Amino acid sequence: MLIVKKFGGSSVANAEKVLNVAKRIGKSYDEGNDVVVVLSAQGDTTDELIAKAQEINSKPSRREMDMLLSTGEQQSVALMAIALEKLGYPSISLNAYQVGMNTTSTYSKARLKNIQTDRVQAELERKNIVIITGFQGINRFDDITTLGRGGSDTTAVALAAVLKADRCEIYTDVEGIYTADPRIVKDAKKLSEITYDEMLELASLGARVLHNRSVELAKKYHVELVVRSSLNYEEGTVVREVCNMEKMLISGVAADKDVARISVIGVHDEPGKAFNLFGLLAKHKINIDIILQSVGRDGTKDITFTVAKDMLEETLDLLEENRERLTVKDIVHDENVAKVSVVGAGMVSNPGVAAKMFEALYDAHINIQMISTSEIKISVLIDEDKAENAINAIHDKFQLGNIKLKR
Amino acid sequence: MLIVKKFGGSSVANAEKVLNVAKRIGKSYDEGNDVVVVLSAQGDTTDELIAKAQEINSKPSRREMDMLLSTGEQQSVALMAIALEKLGYPSISLNAYQVGMNTTSTYSKARLKNIQTDRVQAELERKNIVIITGFQGINRFDDITTLGRGGSDTTAVALAAVLKADRCEIYTDVEGIYTADPRIVKDAKKLSEITYDEMLELASLGARVLHNRSVELAKKYHVELVVRSSLNYEEGTVVREVCNMEKMLISGVAADKDVARISVIGVHDEPGKAFNLFGLLAKHKINIDIILQSVGRDGTKDITFTVAKDMLEETLDLLEENRERLTVKDIVHDENVAKVSVVGAGMVSNPGVAAKMFEALYDAHINIQMISTSEIKISVLIDEDKAENAINAIHDKFQLGNIKLKR
Repeated sequence: MLIVKKFGGSSVANAEKVLNVAKRIGKSYDEGNDVVVVLSAQGDTTDELIAKAQEINSKPSRREMDMLLSTGEQQSVALMAIALEKLGYPSISLNAYQVGMNTTSTYSKARLKNIQTDRVQAELERKNIVIITGFQGINRFDDITTLGRGGSDTTAVALAAVLKADRCEIYTDVEGIYTADPRIVKDAKKLSEITYDEMLELASLGARVLHNRSVELAKKYHVELVVRSSLNYEEGTVVREVCNMEKMLISGVAADKDVARISVIGVHDEPGKAFNLFGLLAKHKINIDIILQSVGRDGTKDITFTVAKDMLEETLDLLEENRERLTVKDIVHDENVAKVSVVGAGMVSNPGVAAKMFEALYDAHINIQMISTSEIKISVLIDEDKAENAINAIHDKFQLGNIKLKR
Repeated sequence: MLIVKKFGGSSVANAEKVLNVAKRIGKSYDEGNDVVVVLSAQGDTTDELIAKAQEINSKPSRREMDMLLSTGEQQSVALMAIALEKLGYPSISLNAYQVGMNTTSTYSKARLKNIQTDRVQAELERKNIVIITGFQGINRFDDITTLGRGGSDTTAVALAAVLKADRCEIYTDVEGIYTADPRIVKDAKKLSEITYDEMLELASLGARVLHNRSVELAKKYHVELVVRSSLNYEEGTVVREVCNMEKMLISGVAADKDVARISVIGVHDEPGKAFNLFGLLAKHKINIDIILQSVGRDGTKDITFTVAKDMLEETLDLLEENRERLTVKDIVHDENVAKVSVVGAGMVSNPGVAAKMFEALYDAHINIQMISTSEIKISVLIDEDKAENAINAIHDKFQLGNIKLKR
């Protein structure tokens, strides 16, 4: 079997942890597998490097930040190779340039374009364990790019895809995907399986186990993903196209607090205005999520939408600069919001899910600000400080703690 | 003017120092110069990374150590670009791969083979200040190599050579080259000029201002080197082919404590034995320095030589493994030795220098273990704890503290 294993920064935070992970990798190699390992930067390395740069310049260019941050993963892979050498395993570390990890040119949030496989294949044929830097790539200028936070998952899945690996294991500090965050909901249950689509919805809304781009990639290239703990040998959760067990109504409930609401007030009620607004945001790579447009009144309308919190400032600046062109009268925003969602492939054929969810919130006296639905997800925007309440209320309502099915 | 400026790790050890150096670089750019900057890793970064690796594996492979250590310089150049951005200067950082800094394959002590100039030239034409990682290169496997300690000087001089720079400035924590280490000899004087050959001898024996390979390169490609302080604007010492001033008898005296003595005892007194021994060491890239061979006796001879301290263990292991083939009876070694040397281009025409040096040591009751001479240098091996005494005695004897000449 060819297995790609990805370990996050906390799994390799110090010498002891690096050696522990090395043992685990070695065990898999001993079982006769070809092993490719993808690593993030150790522990707080990335944050420390960001702090170092901030001390010098509060607005460093993204190009230079990528040059700086990419060193964190390079240190991790070298140290892991050194640990595997210690344990007597043949291994080699490779960075993005050595692998040929080609990305778009957008610094700090580049997207993978293609990955060369020659070097990796050659090293696997030499029976080396190949340890590759996550999170980073090389653009057409030969400059270093990074894939954004959580990008190491994407690196791992993309490698699994191009190498046609039998599976891609994502090691993390939890044992798998749960029906809800176990720190918030006491009787949250671990799922043994989940579909890509369900995982996508969960990943994009704050169940921060997998980076959503990595799940999209896994779905596109049919990579079997396994989310499991780096601390024990429990089986974890398998993410695949179709789950074998009978569909449950919903698989999980999650909250995303990393969200801010922006309302642009008094936009001229003419065709093209919404397009202007969202076209502008798209051009600046600002992802927007839930959108709500009020019905026109007095020849104007209000458009409300949500963005990730760390994009709030940039978005507000951009709106302010384009105020006239967009015919905006006023711009208001609220950071104290959270998005709470239920996700489940079984939802499609069960029209009562939304009603049940709203009832749970009503019973818990939680006001709903915005609603968004997809085939397998229903999200609501609520006050941030009600998020935990909401999750527990919904988890109870759907009796997710009592599931008997294996999944 | 095109100027290459190299700053060592202590000059960029923290945010404040990085910004200070950035100001200095900016000043040179403002004066109309094209500026290329070569940086080492910040402060103790390299040592910290070595310690991290050692915690995991006391004998890490050199390939992985190079992968690990090269991140230090990459952090430095990114942070310097970020500092220059803060001050409003156009700049770009480049690592060894981006420049095309091609080296031999020997990890941890690679030698530069050639340097691509396209990218650097292009960035200079865009009026960017170009900041390049010192110390590191890329070998034919696309693997990262390092040039060994002090290799950043070599990077700077090599860049100055291929770019045909008007000068190469090496910034350090001293104001230039002195007649002796000012920390040891109170009345040591700064030289305004010194020849490449003199500098070479000083560099190779512990006057750790310039890496000797950098001086060799500068000599070969006629790069005018300037050694000056990063803390003030004093003029420093110019290193060039021929000095204008009347030659002094000797330019300086220096001690090298990073040396160990090894004696192989009872080698068969047959032709080829010394060749076998030194051929073996050369094959393993172990540089030997002073060699002393005893006159044969009872059909055997003793060969004594010195190596750098950090090569001692490897050399002893190698000798032990080849004991039979080399017909060695016994191997002894001593780490508590120092090499003290006087250097001066004027020495060639003055036969009395050696006698004067030995007299100084005799007067100071210092025993001479081994002697080695070249056209412009005389070195003696003595007890390590007598090194400071010896330097002072010699400095006094040659009245180096009283020189009136400008040099």
